[in-house]
Parts: sequence; structure tokens; C-alpha cells
Amino acid sequence: MRGKFSGFLLVPQIIFIVLYGVFVQYDVQAGPRNASDTTSSEHFDKLYPMFQDVHVMIFIGFGFLMTFLRRYGFGSVGFNFMLAAFVIQWTILIRGCLDLEDIKDGKININLETFLNADFACGAVLISFGAVLGVLGPIQLIVMAILEVVFYSVNEFVIAHKFQISDIGGSMVIHTFGAYFGLAVSLVHWRPELKDAHPKEESVYHSDLFAMIGTLFLWLYWPSFNGAPAAGTIIGERAVINTLFSLAAAGVSAFAMSSIVDKSGKISMVHVQNATLAGGVAAGAVANLKIGPLGATLLGSSSGILSVLGYAYITPAILQHMNIHDTCGVHNLHGMPGVLSGVAAVIIAKATSPTTYTTLELSAIYPGRVNNLDFQQQANLQLAGLAVTLGISIIGGLLTGLVLKAPFLGSVKHQDLFDDRPYWNLESEESNDIPMKNLQQEPTRKSLVLHHLYCNVN
Amino acid sequence: MRGKFSGFLLVPQIIFIVLYGVFVQYDVQAGPRNASDTTSSEHFDKLYPMFQDVHVMIFIGFGFLMTFLRRYGFGSVGFNFMLAAFVIQWTILIRGCLDLEDIKDGKININLETFLNADFACGAVLISFGAVLGVLGPIQLIVMAILEVVFYSVNEFVIAHKFQISDIGGSMVIHTFGAYFGLAVSLVHWRPELKDAHPKEESVYHSDLFAMIGTLFLWLYWPSFNGAPAAGTIIGERAVINTLFSLAAAGVSAFAMSSIVDKSGKISMVHVQNATLAGGVAAGAVANLKIGPLGATLLGSSSGILSVLGYAYITPAILQHMNIHDTCGVHNLHGMPGVLSGVAAVIIAKATSPTTYTTLELSAIYPGRVNNLDFQQQANLQLAGLAVTLGISIIGGLLTGLVLKAPFLGSVKHQDLFDDRPYWNLESEESNDIPMKNLQQEPTRKSLVLHHLYCNVN
Amino acid sequence: MRGKFSGFLLVPQIIFIVLYGVFVQYDVQAGPRNASDTTSSEHFDKLYPMFQDVHVMIFIGFGFLMTFLRRYGFGSVGFNFMLAAFVIQWTILIRGCLDLEDIKDGKININLETFLNADFACGAVLISFGAVLGVLGPIQLIVMAILEVVFYSVNEFVIAHKFQISDIGGSMVIHTFGAYFGLAVSLVHWRPELKDAHPKEESVYHSDLFAMIGTLFLWLYWPSFNGAPAAGTIIGERAVINTLFSLAAAGVSAFAMSSIVDKSGKISMVHVQNATLAGGVAAGAVANLKIGPLGATLLGSSSGILSVLGYAYITPAILQHMNIHDTCGVHNLHGMPGVLSGVAAVIIAKATSPTTYTTLELSAIYPGRVNNLDFQQQANLQLAGLAVTLGISIIGGLLTGLVLKAPFLGSVKHQDLFDDRPYWNLESEESNDIPMKNLQQEPTRKSLVLHHLYCNVN
Repeated sequence: MRGKFSGFLLVPQIIFIVLYGVFVQYDVQAGPRNASDTTSSEHFDKLYPMFQDVHVMIFIGFGFLMTFLRRYGFGSVGFNFMLAAFVIQWTILIRGCLDLEDIKDGKININLETFLNADFACGAVLISFGAVLGVLGPIQLIVMAILEVVFYSVNEFVIAHKFQISDIGGSMVIHTFGAYFGLAVSLVHWRPELKDAHPKEESVYHSDLFAMIGTLFLWLYWPSFNGAPAAGTIIGERAVINTLFSLAAAGVSAFAMSSIVDKSGKISMVHVQNATLAGGVAAGAVANLKIGPLGATLLGSSSGILSVLGYAYITPAILQHMNIHDTCGVHNLHGMPGVLSGVAAVIIAKATSPTTYTTLELSAIYPGRVNNLDFQQQANLQLAGLAVTLGISIIGGLLTGLVLKAPFLGSVKHQDLFDDRPYWNLESEESNDIPMKNLQQEPTRKSLVLHHLYCNVN
Repeated sequence: MRGKFSGFLLVPQIIFIVLYGVFVQYDVQAGPRNASDTTSSEHFDKLYPMFQDVHVMIFIGFGFLMTFLRRYGFGSVGFNFMLAAFVIQWTILIRGCLDLEDIKDGKININLETFLNADFACGAVLISFGAVLGVLGPIQLIVMAILEVVFYSVNEFVIAHKFQISDIGGSMVIHTFGAYFGLAVSLVHWRPELKDAHPKEESVYHSDLFAMIGTLFLWLYWPSFNGAPAAGTIIGERAVINTLFSLAAAGVSAFAMSSIVDKSGKISMVHVQNATLAGGVAAGAVANLKIGPLGATLLGSSSGILSVLGYAYITPAILQHMNIHDTCGVHNLHGMPGVLSGVAAVIIAKATSPTTYTTLELSAIYPGRVNNLDFQQQANLQLAGLAVTLGISIIGGLLTGLVLKAPFLGSVKHQDLFDDRPYWNLESEESNDIPMKNLQQEPTRKSLVLHHLYCNVN
Repeated sequence: MRGKFSGFLLVPQIIFIVLYGVFVQYDVQAGPRNASDTTSSEHFDKLYPMFQDVHVMIFIGFGFLMTFLRRYGFGSVGFNFMLAAFVIQWTILIRGCLDLEDIKDGKININLETFLNADFACGAVLISFGAVLGVLGPIQLIVMAILEVVFYSVNEFVIAHKFQISDIGGSMVIHTFGAYFGLAVSLVHWRPELKDAHPKEESVYHSDLFAMIGTLFLWLYWPSFNGAPAAGTIIGERAVINTLFSLAAAGVSAFAMSSIVDKSGKISMVHVQNATLAGGVAAGAVANLKIGPLGATLLGSSSGILSVLGYAYITPAILQHMNIHDTCGVHNLHGMPGVLSGVAAVIIAKATSPTTYTTLELSAIYPGRVNNLDFQQQANLQLAGLAVTLGISIIGGLLTGLVLKAPFLGSVKHQDLFDDRPYWNLESEESNDIPMKNLQQEPTRKSLVLHHLYCNVN
């Protein structure tokens, strides 16, 4: 993959640099020539800690969450890193084209919010990456990211800009979109061998601990994810508090359900790693609304339960009956809880009364309702937004999946699925414990007599 | 444990949701109906970064610190997560009952400080968890957490609310309380087999590295732990700076002592993982006082030395002679340094002169002294606070320990001590390296001849 | 090493405590006796989140980045911790002596910025540690740190204080200095055996994952590293944004180049772990300048490419031809990108026009140019600063290396290179999987027949 892979990274990188030279400039906040003082806007100082939390979620959170696979740890944390560094730069340009960035004098004005929005686009791409983890090769992933950012931005343009829906934490824009986009790509890249458990599609003890690093940083910083778009306001504070409630309830419920769905009542790491986070997704579209501690914990609990049920029953079903392989179970963590959050946003919009929010709050939450207090219309728009998101993500994912079939993008051979070795230089490690150890799972290599010997030896 | 475990989580979770609906509402800061603007209070913005640091300490810090055990990694980071998500929700209600929360119109008013205080209660529970790590089962842990939060809040009510002692970092309220509560529970759950080193009560190379993730995040964010209650004030800044000094001194001293107590002068990871943190505990009760860089480094050094001596000599002694098993050595990290900090707070209160602090500072540090400058009385109250903490924690721990003896709470069988397998679904990993490898320690399974063979092979 | 090692830590620690008592006091911000209110300076609140990010970089970032070695994980994260806790305390005194701290009434005034500057000095020392990782023993490391802080502070005094160069992110002061100082020490401690790959100088699968924790936290928090010295101002905001651009470009470029330099086109973890970070170093000296998104991405890309080329071609060359062993490749991550940044700072200073910045901005960026707008002179000073840094670091490193040759400082035996066992108490782990497993690489212990058996068994 030598020249090709590098070309797919370096050619866009050169294009980014050139386009940045022509079309991108600092926002007035970062220092125009006639800035009269060195005092930064207050906004940067309030947003920065939340931005850094989101940044950690994207690179550490998503990256390590996916390291649960026994021999795809480098791919998980490494390709996650590569894709996110790439998508940040690409998103700025695409969102600029769609007028989603702050444009002045025909140039995109950059400030910290630009990078926050770029991180959000990374979120969607990395969720889709989770659906096809270990199944697509790195060049395919880069091309997927290039295309997905376009569909993502179009969807955002339609539902956030045009419909003016409320979705502060991106439960629709980011989570639902990323999940169904990834599942659609996965459907196109279905191969019958995926139906049977692949011997490498498994975790080992320490890979599950690495994944917990990702889980916990996602869980801890999710309030910042949902609150950052309203950083420094009372609305952002409410988003943080609702998300804290929802996550705590999802955490407890996920542990309880994990034991219930197991025949011997044991807890599964896959549920702890993922379903506990559903509370963050479920709160997303309504975190800035007055759902109250009751609403937040109810939503969190439901999403934790829903997510575990998804891992236990729905993922196996869509694998067997719909030919969709979902490596990380993004449908359970991002897909269903995202839809749940979107539906909750419809119901809550409908239940909003003209006295619920002040005009100032409305302008931040439901800008379309400032001059038109028809909350039934807002509810309809929220529902339309959810439908559009599902439509664009699924169609976009199917189209992208077809493009990724192009032979020169390098599909992964069956024996290389869920394996770092075709893409990572493991030379010094080839003769080491880990890769060799992993082979023991593969029945053809394991003689029962020797296995017995080994057990006694060890 | 299938239905029972889930019931012990889900029934309280449903109760939380219902009570939140009835008794809990947003604080005015998070947006009452008549909020006239969308501007958040400044306080949230100042507290939030510190709160997030504390949040990381509770879930990543405590969680990974305890992963040092070779085959209890899931239990360490997993039950830590479960307990903390549970305790956050439970603490809000109990502290509300005791009037420790902000109550208006008969309702508990929620803001970010509510969650900070809930995280502090988690701290105490997780310290106790450390004392009985691997010895109590998950249902016992949940019941322990339920009861401990009640005793914890009563103690806080008495010493912080009534005595008005100064303990900004919770060295008494959190650390001393959590440690002695846990040790008392451990005493009740003594079993003679614990006297001899259990073959699974050991670390392996990579489990010690995982534990360092916990250690370092605790060490790094401890200044926020001690400073957060005074976030945004000069007092909080002083708490941060004193804690930084104390932690650096404890770090250096712990390394030095670790080598001294080893017969061949080698450093032990258990000291690096724990005794380096004693500086944070030792600074806790006095971090906001004018102890100066001298006082802070002196306290930090002493606590680092004391903590290593505790691991080397005191923990083995209380195991052998007092029948108290302390898996994580919480007595050395939280117990003794907490008492040291409490005693330091007595001495410093006594040495305070009426001119040391302005009235405004006094109202934040020693509210009881604003109208009565008798600092000897403050010193007496501080001492009484320490005594009450020891009393409530030990009695509460003993009572809780007895309750946990109830057979239907599922005590852990001897062969399941310090082991994830009875509680965690390790199906795909049963045949893997880690669990098998671990068996090699158990002498009955190890033949010397084969061991020799293994050594040569590997 | 029992008494000696502890003495080299405890004697300085006692000296620190005494000198702190005599010469160090709180800054007015942390609360003098006549503080009229409890309101902290705004500055603390703005700096604190950035400071904590830098703090994480020093202890988690550098610490885990170096855990890539298979059997030097404790030394990497442990000695990193020890050195940093030591250097923080030592730096405050040395910088105080050189008038680099805030001095009032003959005392060093401590505030949060004092600790930020101490963390920066840790950065330089830990970079040098990376050059000699596994080659020097712990006592040698402590002595190296003691001496390096002196040379570091002298260099800072000359180029920052006297020449008034602009180097907000410390690309010269910290990165270039730390790298060449470490390489000079390494040259003096050359031993011919280092020319051939040492069997323990290798990573294993999970040690590379641990290293990614370090990498990612460094990458994520680097904007704070470059922006913290101007926290709360428009200049700090620009430093953050330029660094974000540079890091993203370096990330993409490093992945691309890693595949190019490999004969089979595979990606190497060593490049992902290190070259991705070169963008942070390269941005350092110019991050607060108006280099624009174009300049930042260009610099980031170049440094990522340069760094990978360094790992692939330059490090082997200086090992073979210049007898310099560079365990972590600090020349590629800190050395060359630091020089690149320094040279960029010369060019940009030269290109600055009198209208580029307001006077207020100039006073923060180029204080020497406020009353004298000769930017050619600034360029000359920047160049001189780079030369002085190279000179002091190399000479200081050579002298320090010679001092470390003193026999009572305990040089490392050949069989103990890159090995935790001589310094860490691994008793309970001696018979465990990891250390034993590691031996399999050493040919003398490996019988081919048994190796074949092992492969089949496992």
C-alpha cells in the first residue's frame, strides 16, 4: 500500500495547505491587524476547557474505546488518530463552502468554535469507523472520511441551518448520522464470512482494560460535549447538569441490565464499555431544555437499558438477518440512543409552552420560535430533522460504500480482518508473545494434548 | 447473582428517578422560568474545570489505581464505575435530607456544586472499596455504598455544619472517614485465609502500569480536589498552590523511602502508586490556610515518608495482629495522612492570630470565627471533628460490616477472592493467555519439571 | 543502591524545605495578610485549565510516551514522575537565583505561573531523559536533572531575558535545549555495545499501546503548552489556534511518511507516537505570531515529514557514525523540529512590518521592539538565541555527562540496560509471564526445538 496510502493523505494535505492560504484567516478574536488590545474575548476562555474535553473524547475516548479487539489495537487508536487529524482540516473547508462557518470577505474566519465543530464532524466519522472497524482498510477509511464529511455537512446544513432544530449535543447530527452512515457502509461491504464469529474478533483481558480508558474519558467529558456549543451561558450549564444526571442513570442501568441478559448473571465488559455512554447520547438533543432531573435520569436509564438489549439481541439479529456487521455495536451506543434522543426532542418541543423560556433563551434554543411561538411546528421540524438525518446518512452510507468497493482502494483479505499486521510494522514483535499467543484461539493450530501440557506448565 | 444484583441496582435507580421528580429542581443558576438572560453565573465557569478534574480523579483515578491486581482489573475499574454512578445519585438525596444541599421551597436545588459534593462522597466510598477490594462481592458493595453515604453525610453534617471545622480538601470528611470505615468493614469480614498471601493478591507488570494511569491522574488533579470548594477565590488559589508543593515533596520522599525500606534498595511500585499521593491528603485540611511553601513541603514530605512506612511495617502488622486486611493499603494513603492533616489543622488553628486573615477570608475559612476570634476554640473544634470522624467511621463501618454478613448479599468464596471470574463474563477469554497464565502461581498446578521446561521455552 | 539513591533525593529535599522557609513566599495573589477580599485574580482562573493540561503533558504525556520499551515501563513512567517532582521544586529556587522569578523583598513570590515555568523546565529535563532512557541509572538521572536545570535557566536568562527573543512555546528554550543536552550526555556515555540492537531495546504490542496514552495527551494538550504563557489574552488564543493547525497537519503527514519510508509500505508505531507531535514543537517559537493557517499547516506538515525522515535515516546514522545513542529519538521529535521552529522565528521576525502588531501586542511578543521597530535586529537576536541554545545545551550536556561518569553515581551494567529489574522491586513478578516471556528474545536462552514446541502449544 506504500505509495497509494501516502498519496491519499499527502495530496489532500497539500490541497488543504493551499486552500488555507487562499480562503482561511483568523477570526477577529485571534487578532486582526488593528486589534486595539491584547485582551482575548471572554468567550475563548470559557469555551477552551470544554473544547479540550471534547478533544480528549475524540482522540483518547473514541481511540481507546475501540482497542478492545485483541490484535487491532494499533488500528483502533492509530487510524482513529489519523482520521481525526485529517477530518479536522477537511471539515473546516467543507463547512466553509456550505456557509456553516463564519464567512467574512469571502474568507472562512477561524476561531476556537471552528475547531469544536470540526471535532464534532470527527465524532460522526469515528462512529462510522466503529461500525466497520477491522473490516475496511486504511485507504478505504480515508475515502470514507472524505465523503462522509460532505454528507454530514449537508445534513447539518439542512436540519440545523434550515429547519433550525434544537440538537445541542448532536444526537441526531453526530450520533444518529454517524451510526447509520457506518451501518450502511457495512451493509455494502458485507461478506458471508462475517456471519460466523471471526477468531480475531475478540477481546483479551488487557485490551478490555485499554478500552475502559476510552469509555471513562468519554463518560466523564460528555457533559462538555453536550454543553460546549453553549459554553459560558446558563443554557450550557443546564446542558452539563442534565447530561451528568443522564450519564449516572445510564451507568447504573447498564450494569443492572448486563447481568440480567446473561444466563449466569455475569456482567459483560462490552456493556460497561458502551451502554453506560448511551446516557450521553440520549441526553444530547434535549440537554439544554428544561427536562428536569426527572427527565434526565429517566432518559439516561432508558437508554442504558435499550443499549444493553441492543448488544444482547438486536446486533446479533441484524448480523444474521440483515447482513450488517457492526464491530463496535455503534447501533446500540449511538444509533438507537440517538433516535431516542431525537424522539424525546420532538415530544418536549411539543410540550413547550410560550412561558417556558424567555425570548433570550429561545433565541439560543429554538431560534425559529422567537418570532413564532408555534411549538407544534417546532416538534414537526424536529421530527423532520430526524427523518432527514436517517435518510441522508443511509443513502450517503450506501453510496459511499459503493465507492469504497473500487478495487484500487484495497479491500481487506479475509485472513487480515481485525488484524493490525497487514498495515502496521510489527517486525520486532512478530516473534513476541502477543501475536503468537493470539494464534492459540485458532483451532487448527491447537493440539489438545499440547494444550493440556501448556495448562499444566502455566 | 442474576436477578438479585440487578434488583439491588434497579430498585434504587427507580426510587432515585421518582424522588428526583418530586424533590429535586434546577438551581436558579441552571435556569428557572423567569431567568432574565442566558448568561450563566460566573461561578459555574470557574468551577467547571476544577470539577472535571475531580470527576476524572473519581472514575479514572480511583478506578485505575486499583487495577494493580492481576486478575481483578475489571472489578477494580468496573465496580468503581458502578459504585460512583450510583453514589452520585444517592448522595444528592441524602445530603438533601440533612439540609446539606441548597434547599428552596422544600426542594433540593441542583447546580454544579451539588455534583462536586456528590463526587466527594464517592471519594469516601471508593476509599472504603479499596480496603475490601476483591474481598466483598458486588451486592455487598452496593449495600455498603448505600449505608456509607448515610454515615458520611451525618459526619459531614456534624463536623462541617455544626462544628464549622475547616477541611477544604476533605482530609477528615473524606479520606479519614473513608479509610477507617473501610477498615472497620474489613475487620468484620476477616477470614483467617487472608493472613497468608493469597496467590491472586498480586500485581503483574502491565497491571502495575495500568495502576499508574490512576496514580498520575490523582496526583495531577489533586490541587483541584483541594481547591474546588473555593473555586474562583484567592483561597482556592492558595489551596491549589499549597497542594502542588505538598504533592511534589511527597513524590520525592516516597521514592527515597521506598528504596530505604527495601533490603536491596529497590523501589516498589506500590509505594510509587500510593505514597506519592499522600501529599494531597496531608494538605487537605490545611490547604487553604497560610501554611506557606515551608509548611506545605514539610507536610508533603512527612506524609510521603509516613505512607511508605505504613506499607512496609504497619499494614503487615495490622494484618497479623489486628485481623484487618487492607487490599489497597488505604490506611497508608488515606487513613494516616488524613489524621496527620487533621492534627496539622488543629495546630495551625491554634497558631492563628486575629490578624492572619481578613474578615472576608475568615468567613470562608473559619466561619465560626468571624464574630468570635477565639482560635483556641477553633483548634478544639478541629480536634473534636477529627475524633467524631474516627468515631462515626469506625462505628458505622462495624455496623455496615455486620449488615453485609447477611447471607443473601452473597459473600465471596475463598477461591473467588481477588478474581474477576465469578462476576464478569470472561467467556471469550477463558481459554486465553491471561487467566491461564495466572494459574502458574498456584503451586498445586505447577510441576517443577514443567516449570523448568517453560522457563527454557520462553 | 539503597542508602545512596535515597540520599540523593532526601538531602536536596531537606534543602528545598529549608530554603523555601527562608526565601519563598506566596505572591500577593495567593493571599497576603492585608488582602482586602477573597476574590482571586482573574489571571489564575484563566491560566489554571491550561496549566493543568501542561501538567498532564509532563507526567502522563512524557511518562507514558516512554513506556514503549518492553521491560522498562516502570523506569519510564516512574523515573519520569520522580524527576519531575524533583525538578519542580529545584527549578523554583534556581530561577529565583537568576531573577527569572518574581522577586519582592528578597523573596521569591509564588503563584501559578511559577509552577508553569517549573513544568517547562521539567519538559527539558524529561526530553534529555528520553535520549538516555534505559542507559543511565536513577542516581545519574537525579544528578543530571540537578545540573541541567542550572544550564537550562542560564540559557533562558540569556536568550529570553537578555536577548528578549520570542519563543512562547519554548521550542528553543525547552525542546532544542533538552534534546541537544540529552544527546551530548549520551555521546559521553557511549558504549560500543549500543551500536548493535540490544535485545531489550524493543517494544511489545501492549507497551506500544501504553505509549499511545502519552502521545495522545501530548498531542491534545500541546495547544495549552504553547498558549499558556499568554493565557487569557488574544495572543494566547492565536497560539492555541496555530498549534491546533500545526498538529493536525503533522499528524496526517507523519502517517503518510511512515508508510513511505517502509519498504512494504507499513506504518510504524514509533512514527505515530513521535512524529505526529513534531507539529507542536515546530509551532512553538512562532505560535503567537501571525503566521496564519497557511503558515501553521505548512510548518506542521514539514515537521511531521522531517521527524519521520529523522527516525528512518538520521538516528541510525548518528548512532553508527557519531556514536550517539538516542533511545526515544528526541533528536527527531524535539531537536530538529525545535531548530526548524527557531529558524522560522528568524524568518518571520525579519518579515514583520511595523504595522503587523499594535504596540500592546508588541510588548507581549517582542518587548524589545516596542521602542525600537528594527525587526531585522529582532531576527538577528532570534538567530543568536538559537545559536546560544545549541551552544549551552551541547557544552552543558558534555560537562554533565562527564560528571555522571563518577563511579559512585552507579553506571548501568550492560545486561541491565533498558531493564527495570535492577532498580524496581519485581519480586512477586519474577516468576510471572511478562519478565519470563521477554527472555525468549535472547538467543542464548532459546532452543529452537523448544521454540517450535512453544509455537505449537500456544
